[in-house]
Amino acid sequence: MTAGSTTAQLIEKHRPTLDQALEAIRTRAYWSPYPEHPKAYGAEGAVPGSLSAAEGQAAFEALRGKRFELDQPGAQGWTGAEISPYGPELGVEYPHPDVERLLPAMRAAMPEWREAGPEVRAVVCAEILARINARTHEFAHAVMHTSGQAFMMAFQAGGPHAQDRGLEAVAYAYAEQVRTPGAAEWSKPQGKRDPLALSKQFTAVPRGISLLIGCNTFPTWNGYPGLFASLATGNAVLVKPHPRAVLPLALTVRIAREVLNDAGFSPDLVTLAAERDGEGIAKALATRPEIRIIDYTGSTAFGDWLEANARQAQVFTEKAGVNTVVIDSTDDYKGLLSNLAFSLSLYSGQMCTTPQNFLIPREGITTDAGPKSYDEVVTDLAGAVEGLLGDDARANALLGAIVNDQVKERIAAAAQLGEVALASRQVTNPDFPEATVRTPVIVKLDGAKPDAEAAYLSECFGPVAFAVAVDSARDAVELLRRTIREKGAMTVGAYTTSPEVERLVEEACLEECAQLSLNLTGGVYVNQTAAFSDFHGSGGNPAANAVLCDSAFVATRFRTVEVRRPS
Amino acid sequence: MTAGSTTAQLIEKHRPTLDQALEAIRTRAYWSPYPEHPKAYGAEGAVPGSLSAAEGQAAFEALRGKRFELDQPGAQGWTGAEISPYGPELGVEYPHPDVERLLPAMRAAMPEWREAGPEVRAVVCAEILARINARTHEFAHAVMHTSGQAFMMAFQAGGPHAQDRGLEAVAYAYAEQVRTPGAAEWSKPQGKRDPLALSKQFTAVPRGISLLIGCNTFPTWNGYPGLFASLATGNAVLVKPHPRAVLPLALTVRIAREVLNDAGFSPDLVTLAAERDGEGIAKALATRPEIRIIDYTGSTAFGDWLEANARQAQVFTEKAGVNTVVIDSTDDYKGLLSNLAFSLSLYSGQMCTTPQNFLIPREGITTDAGPKSYDEVVTDLAGAVEGLLGDDARANALLGAIVNDQVKERIAAAAQLGEVALASRQVTNPDFPEATVRTPVIVKLDGAKPDAEAAYLSECFGPVAFAVAVDSARDAVELLRRTIREKGAMTVGAYTTSPEVERLVEEACLEECAQLSLNLTGGVYVNQTAAFSDFHGSGGNPAANAVLCDSAFVATRFRTVEVRRPS
Repeated sequence: MTAGSTTAQLIEKHRPTLDQALEAIRTRAYWSPYPEHPKAYGAEGAVPGSLSAAEGQAAFEALRGKRFELDQPGAQGWTGAEISPYGPELGVEYPHPDVERLLPAMRAAMPEWREAGPEVRAVVCAEILARINARTHEFAHAVMHTSGQAFMMAFQAGGPHAQDRGLEAVAYAYAEQVRTPGAAEWSKPQGKRDPLALSKQFTAVPRGISLLIGCNTFPTWNGYPGLFASLATGNAVLVKPHPRAVLPLALTVRIAREVLNDAGFSPDLVTLAAERDGEGIAKALATRPEIRIIDYTGSTAFGDWLEANARQAQVFTEKAGVNTVVIDSTDDYKGLLSNLAFSLSLYSGQMCTTPQNFLIPREGITTDAGPKSYDEVVTDLAGAVEGLLGDDARANALLGAIVNDQVKERIAAAAQLGEVALASRQVTNPDFPEATVRTPVIVKLDGAKPDAEAAYLSECFGPVAFAVAVDSARDAVELLRRTIREKGAMTVGAYTTSPEVERLVEEACLEECAQLSLNLTGGVYVNQTAAFSDFHGSGGNPAANAVLCDSAFVATRFRTVEVRRPS
Repeated sequence: MTAGSTTAQLIEKHRPTLDQALEAIRTRAYWSPYPEHPKAYGAEGAVPGSLSAAEGQAAFEALRGKRFELDQPGAQGWTGAEISPYGPELGVEYPHPDVERLLPAMRAAMPEWREAGPEVRAVVCAEILARINARTHEFAHAVMHTSGQAFMMAFQAGGPHAQDRGLEAVAYAYAEQVRTPGAAEWSKPQGKRDPLALSKQFTAVPRGISLLIGCNTFPTWNGYPGLFASLATGNAVLVKPHPRAVLPLALTVRIAREVLNDAGFSPDLVTLAAERDGEGIAKALATRPEIRIIDYTGSTAFGDWLEANARQAQVFTEKAGVNTVVIDSTDDYKGLLSNLAFSLSLYSGQMCTTPQNFLIPREGITTDAGPKSYDEVVTDLAGAVEGLLGDDARANALLGAIVNDQVKERIAAAAQLGEVALASRQVTNPDFPEATVRTPVIVKLDGAKPDAEAAYLSECFGPVAFAVAVDSARDAVELLRRTIREKGAMTVGAYTTSPEVERLVEEACLEECAQLSLNLTGGVYVNQTAAFSDFHGSGGNPAANAVLCDSAFVATRFRTVEVRRPS
C-alpha cells in the first residue's frame, strides 16, 4: 500500500469526524467521538477493534517488567523507575535518548510532513487518536498506575476525555491553517493600463521541534492538546514525560510512530525523551535552538523559569493557581453541599481545577433550608464529605491514591494552620494495601487575619480546603479578585441567588480573567471541563498563559510563507 | 443622539465594509476600501467629506507652531521638537503625560468597551479609519515631514495603505473573537437519566492596556495594525510615538478619541504619550504591570530588550533583517534591472523591506539578452539606478529625504567596504534646500572573503546595496538560508528561469520561514506588500516575531471568559 492511498483512505475515514469537531468548536454544544463508558470497548462494544476490559488489563500487564522498544534514533541505554502510587513497581524501561542524534532526525522528518498539508496532517492525527481510543482500557491502567487516579477516572479522564482534548486541538489547528487559502490570484486595477497581477501561494510551515513536558497527574489529558496542536501544524514533537508518569505517553508515542509510518511519513516526527528521575533534562532540552515550541504543565517555579529562559521558543504553560468558591446564598443547599463535597474529593483534590478556598460570610448565608451560619455551612460541608466518603469502597473509587509524599505532608501541615473542621482520614484500599488513600481536610481560617492570608493565598495542592470567613459577599468578591490577580485561578465557583452578587462575581471574573461556574448543584463539577465546549484555563491570569483550547493555542505554532510571482 | 443609536448607525454604515474585509482576508484577492489616488479626495473626489489637496495642506500648516490639544487626563506640561527631514521645524507641542493618572483612566474606560462586543468595536474602529481616510491629504504632509518620505509615498503608504493595514487588523480581530459564540446550550446525555445541561456565556475580554511604540519611518503604516488589533479586541491603547514622528500618530489619537466619544465611549481608550527626545519613556512604560500588550517597530537591540524584559506583556516586534535577492537567470533582463533599481531607490532604501544583498554567481548569469558576467550585471544595475534617478525632479519624487544622520553616515561608510560600483550622489531638492537627498550606493563584495561577510551579514539600513559574488546559484541559496536564519529577513527576492533553482530557493524560504517574491520585473516590487493579500514579515525568522496580519497577531490580544450555569 502506498502512502498516497493510505492518506486518501485516512481522509475518507476521518474527514467526517474532523468536520463534526469543527462544528462543535463553533457551536460549543455537547459532542464527543470517543465513548466514555467502559462497555463501549471490546468485541461487543461500539468501538470497532478495541480492547475489552480484560484485554486492556492483559496488555498493560504484558508491558510490566520489560523494556519498552521504540526503535527511535539515538537511543543510549535504558532508563525507567516508575512506581505506582498504588504500590507496585512498573519495572518498565525506556530508551534513554541521545538528543544529538534524535533532534537532527526529527528535523529531517519535517519537510515531508509540511508538504502533506493541513488536511492530511489532521486525519493522520485523528488516526493516532482513534488507535489510542481503541486501547483505552490499556491506557486506563497505565494512567491509574502512574497518576494514582482511581480506575474509572483514569479510564475516562485519561482516555476519552484526553482524546477529546487532543482532537479539539487538531480541529483548531486545521481551522487556523486553512483560513488562508493555498493559492490566490491577485489583480490590482491600474486605470487604463493593464492591471498588476500576481499568483500567490501560501504554505503553513512549522516552527521547528516542539517539546512536550508532561506532568505526573494527568499525563495524557494535559499532554495531548500540545502534542496534537504541534503535530497538526507540521512540527515534530519530542515528548519528555514526567519520570513518574512515562508509560501513558510512551504508549502514545509508540502508536503515533506506527500511524505515521503506516501513512508513509517518518516516525521520527514523534519521539520520546525518557529521563532518569532527578536527571532534569527538561532544562537542557528547553533551551536548545532546535526547540521552537514548549508545552508544559506543572509547578509555577519551573513554568516561570521556562517563560524567562526558553526565549527561542513559544512557551505554553499551565502552572498553579488558587481556586476559589464564593458561597453567598443558594436555593438548593443540599445540592450545593453534595456538589462541593464531590469536587473536593475527586482524585483527592489533586487537580489543578479543584477548589481550595471557600469564601463564606461570617454572618452566614441564606438557603432554601433557612439561614445557615458560617459554622453551620462548614460543618455541613464537612458532613457532606464524610457522607460521600463514608463507605470505603466508594471512597477508594473517588479518591484514588495520593500521588507523592509532598501531598501527604501538605495534608498534615494544613491541619496546623487553623481549626480543623474535617480531619483527613486514612482509607485502606483492599486491592492495593500499599496505596496512600486520604480523605480531604477542611480547615477554618479567618480571612481578616494576616497570618491566615499566607495560607489561603498559596496553592496547597492536594485534598486541602480552607473555609475562609469573610465580612460579606462584597468582601468575598474583593478577595476573589485579589486571589485571581496575584495567584491566578484555573477555576472559580460561586453560589448565589442574588442578582447583585452574581453580577459582582461575573464582573470580577471578566475583569480578572477567570472561568466561572455558577450554582452548580447537580452532576457537573467546577473542576471538570468538557472539550469542544468548555475552555480549560483562561490564559489571562497567572495560573496559565495557555487555554485548552482556543486559536491562540495553535496560531503561533506555525507560520504562513507566501511565494508570489507574476501571473 | 444616544450611544445606542450611534453604534447602530455605525453598524449600518460599516458592516458592509467589514464583511468585504473578511472576504478579502479569506480569498486574498485584491481589495481596498481607501482610494490611493490623491484626486479621490476633496469636494470633487469619490470620498465624501474628505479634504482636498489644498485643504489638507492648509490643515497641516494650521497645526504647525502650536500646541496640539488632546484633552486627555494626566497632562503634565508640553513637549515636542520635531524637525522635518526636509528642513523645517514643525514647532508642534504635545501634552506630556502623567502616566500615574493616565493609566488608571485608561483602565476605567475598558469595561464598557468590553461590554460593547466585537461588532460594535469593529465598526467604531472602521469609523476611526474612515475619518482618518477623509483627512489623507493632511496626514500625507504629517508623514512626509516626519519620515522624510516623498509626498506621493507619504500620501499612499502613510494614508490608504496604512488604513488598509488597520482595517485588515480589525477584520482579523473581529473574525477571531466571533469564532466562539456569545452563548451556547450544552446538554450531555446520561443514558436513562436526565441529561446534564448547562447554559454557557462566552465573552471576549481584553488583556489590559496596549502600548504602541511607533517608529520614525512609517508611523502610521507600522503603527495602525497593532493599534487597531488591540482596540478592536477590547484593550485601551497608549500610543508612544517616536519623538521625531509624533504628529501622524497624534492626529490619529485625536480622531480616535473624537469617534469614541461620539459613539458614547470614553475617549481615554486611546491616548498619547509624547516624550522629550532622549527621554526614553518606552522602557519605563513597557515594564508597567498595567501594560499587557506591546507593539514595536524599530531596532533589533530595543526589540530584543522588550522581548526579554516586558515579560508581563505580549510583545509583537518588527526588528531588523537582511534582505536578499538571488539573481540566477532571467528571461527579462531589462525588467529585472528596472524593477530592482526602483526597489533600491524608493524612499532611499529606508524600508525594512528594501533588498540589501544581491547574490550573483561570479561566473555570471543567463538572460534573454545573452549571458552576463557578474561585473556586467552589477554595472547594468548601477546604470539602471542612474537612469531612473538621472532627472532630479524624478529622483526627489522617488528618494524622499534621508531620515537621520546615521543613514547618511552609513552611506559614507559603505563606500569604504569594497569596490564602489555606483557612488551615492547628492540631489538638490528645490522646494526644500535643507533636505538631505542621496541616491543609492552599490558596493561589490566577494562572498567568499571573510572580511566581506561582516558587511553583508549586517543590516545596513538606508540606500546601500551589496552586490555579493557567489560561487553558484546553489551557493547563493546556502548563503540565503544562513542570512535568514542568523539575521532574519523581511523579504526575499529571486530571479531564475531554472525550475531547479526556483525549487531550491522556495524550499529555503519555506524551511527558514521568509516571504519570497519571484521574478518581479513589472510594477510590483519586492519591498511592497498589499494588505488583505500579502503578509508583511513571516514571524518565523529573527527579523520579526509578528506578521501583518495573521490570526496570531490578534489571537492573544484577548481572552475568552466563560460563565456557565445550570440550564
